[in-house]
Amino acid sequence: MRVVIAPDSFKGSMKSSEAAKRIQQGIQSVFPDWTCERIPVADGGEGTLDAILTATGGYKVPSTVQDPLGRMMRAEWGYCEDRKLAVIETAAASGLSLLTEKELDPYRASTFGTGQLVKEALDRGAQEVVLGLGGSATVDAGVGFFSALGVDFYNRAGMINRPAGGHLGEIEWMDVSRMDPRLKTVRMTIAFDVSNPLLGPEGAISIFGSQKGVQAEETAFFEAGMQRFAEQIIHLTGRDVRSDPGSGAAGGFGFALRSLLDVTFQRGFELIAELTGLERRIRKADMVITGEGKVDRQSLYGKVPMGISKIARDYNVPVVVFAGKVEEEQMEAQKEGISVILPIVDGPMSLKTAMDRGPELLEAASRRFAYILVLSKQ
Amino acid sequence: MRVVIAPDSFKGSMKSSEAAKRIQQGIQSVFPDWTCERIPVADGGEGTLDAILTATGGYKVPSTVQDPLGRMMRAEWGYCEDRKLAVIETAAASGLSLLTEKELDPYRASTFGTGQLVKEALDRGAQEVVLGLGGSATVDAGVGFFSALGVDFYNRAGMINRPAGGHLGEIEWMDVSRMDPRLKTVRMTIAFDVSNPLLGPEGAISIFGSQKGVQAEETAFFEAGMQRFAEQIIHLTGRDVRSDPGSGAAGGFGFALRSLLDVTFQRGFELIAELTGLERRIRKADMVITGEGKVDRQSLYGKVPMGISKIARDYNVPVVVFAGKVEEEQMEAQKEGISVILPIVDGPMSLKTAMDRGPELLEAASRRFAYILVLSKQ
Repeated sequence: MRVVIAPDSFKGSMKSSEAAKRIQQGIQSVFPDWTCERIPVADGGEGTLDAILTATGGYKVPSTVQDPLGRMMRAEWGYCEDRKLAVIETAAASGLSLLTEKELDPYRASTFGTGQLVKEALDRGAQEVVLGLGGSATVDAGVGFFSALGVDFYNRAGMINRPAGGHLGEIEWMDVSRMDPRLKTVRMTIAFDVSNPLLGPEGAISIFGSQKGVQAEETAFFEAGMQRFAEQIIHLTGRDVRSDPGSGAAGGFGFALRSLLDVTFQRGFELIAELTGLERRIRKADMVITGEGKVDRQSLYGKVPMGISKIARDYNVPVVVFAGKVEEEQMEAQKEGISVILPIVDGPMSLKTAMDRGPELLEAASRRFAYILVLSKQ
Repeated sequence: MRVVIAPDSFKGSMKSSEAAKRIQQGIQSVFPDWTCERIPVADGGEGTLDAILTATGGYKVPSTVQDPLGRMMRAEWGYCEDRKLAVIETAAASGLSLLTEKELDPYRASTFGTGQLVKEALDRGAQEVVLGLGGSATVDAGVGFFSALGVDFYNRAGMINRPAGGHLGEIEWMDVSRMDPRLKTVRMTIAFDVSNPLLGPEGAISIFGSQKGVQAEETAFFEAGMQRFAEQIIHLTGRDVRSDPGSGAAGGFGFALRSLLDVTFQRGFELIAELTGLERRIRKADMVITGEGKVDRQSLYGKVPMGISKIARDYNVPVVVFAGKVEEEQMEAQKEGISVILPIVDGPMSLKTAMDRGPELLEAASRRFAYILVLSKQ
């Protein structure tokens, strides 16, 4: 029996590499002679760096850059020397997980640090950059990022120092003449994890604003700022990409990248699937096991388990999904080609306990799954 | 495929009959043509009445009797007209679930109401009584029960009115001369769910006192009372059954029944297995599915899943256990012949939510189990 084990990370509990290891241990404690291939995957958010580095080889580089609020911090990015490929997660320097609930500040949170990381990568000689958009703490439409790379933003009073989400509505002009010239030649691939447009009820503010600290009564202010900034950009570039999928990712960062640079947008999962040869490996497997922290309608329709099942369906390979929490009906999952979704908890417990015990619970659930397979072979 | 579905109740969440129905629905939503035989079982505690009535036929009789604290209440017992068989649970009139946490009162709580139920059964013509001991709120060593049936208990001041747990140490003499004479002729079977002796570190007070409201500093008082009362009984009967299995059940009630009456003690599960023809039905099955609220070391070694697996092992029929909460290691379970223990929760949740959603969770877990069987048959 040949099993491909390709989980997403279980957010807040374990990385995808740890998850893959635990599933394998659970399965092989019952079927020691099964061939298990571990392929940690990700959707462009948390875990993207690890998943790509596992596939391409390379190492992690720690850099000192600004966090979302401008404090100095150490952030890691990945570099594959052979391919001169840098892998950078927006979450590494501009991520939600870097701030406490109380520190969330959509006015001031900035992607500046992510810009610094790209600069570091270019300094090191990168000729290709993969930039993952997921998990940002910002709604700054990337002005912080571009400001770190030499673009100046002006309001009526003059140049804005540390431009961020709160400034978008007052920007009158931007000076791109001194933007880092290497951005013109580097090949840049943007891995996006959500397909939302920039504006409107499905846009960056309406859907993701609140998790970044936008209060209900501030929604209109940030939406208006985002809209006004978009108009400035469209005026500057002559192109309107507001509705392109992923323009609303990372608080409008996607929109700015698409507008100001010549980049390739790709769904994070697909990019990683390509780099890891996932399709080729699933084709040869008898079963695929994947998993993620929470399986709900969103994840079923956009993320890793769904992506896996799309590939597996073509080759008639059954898909099993482990999940910390199952919110989606089994029936729905089956329509999408998933054989079964298995929760990993073993009794009533708090979310915190479930996360703390995640690795152990996943291993035990995998073992239970294997025991049922034994049973049915009797 | 022929499946025997024989769960215990999921205490606080659903009766065994409901559990059996849900498991069947889950399984048959995937395998509509499987033959499912539902046999609700119990261990002598909650669910004993239903399980026996399902097996023997008969009806429920509501009677007005005293609750553990002497308040009038309606309690149900079962009667099978054909066999002149009455089925009575101690929990029905003297149970823990009749009191709030605050009302727990080991001094005053009495088995009087259970005595009244037996009297009702005798009045109706019962020639056989099955009395389940599980789940009592009392540590009265059955003095309440016997006082309802004509036995008088005396201390130095005279006859004790409403004798209960708090009086045991002061009883000087008991008058059994006016005990209901029908108790001599009726066939009485005591279904016990725990094998503990009356006294000592494994006894009724040490192990079960605290759940009935005995505070740590009162343990010595109740233990001494129990001991003194036991000595009185031994003096009276000339028999010492303090260490017989089940003498410590229901707060010493088991001891008194064994000492003062000619009764048959039988493990609740075994009694029910006999009445339901469980062994015969398991022998013909391809798989047995059982379950209970919490599978821990205690349940594995004393209760329903273990009892089921003992039978199933003899006929090489695999056993699957569903549980609200799994505390026992899979490995241990397998040594006992259980193929797999499957928790029913589908994510982090409180105990209350798990209990409220119990039936639905059990059905969904059964469906997931069935989908894994499908998967392995592909």
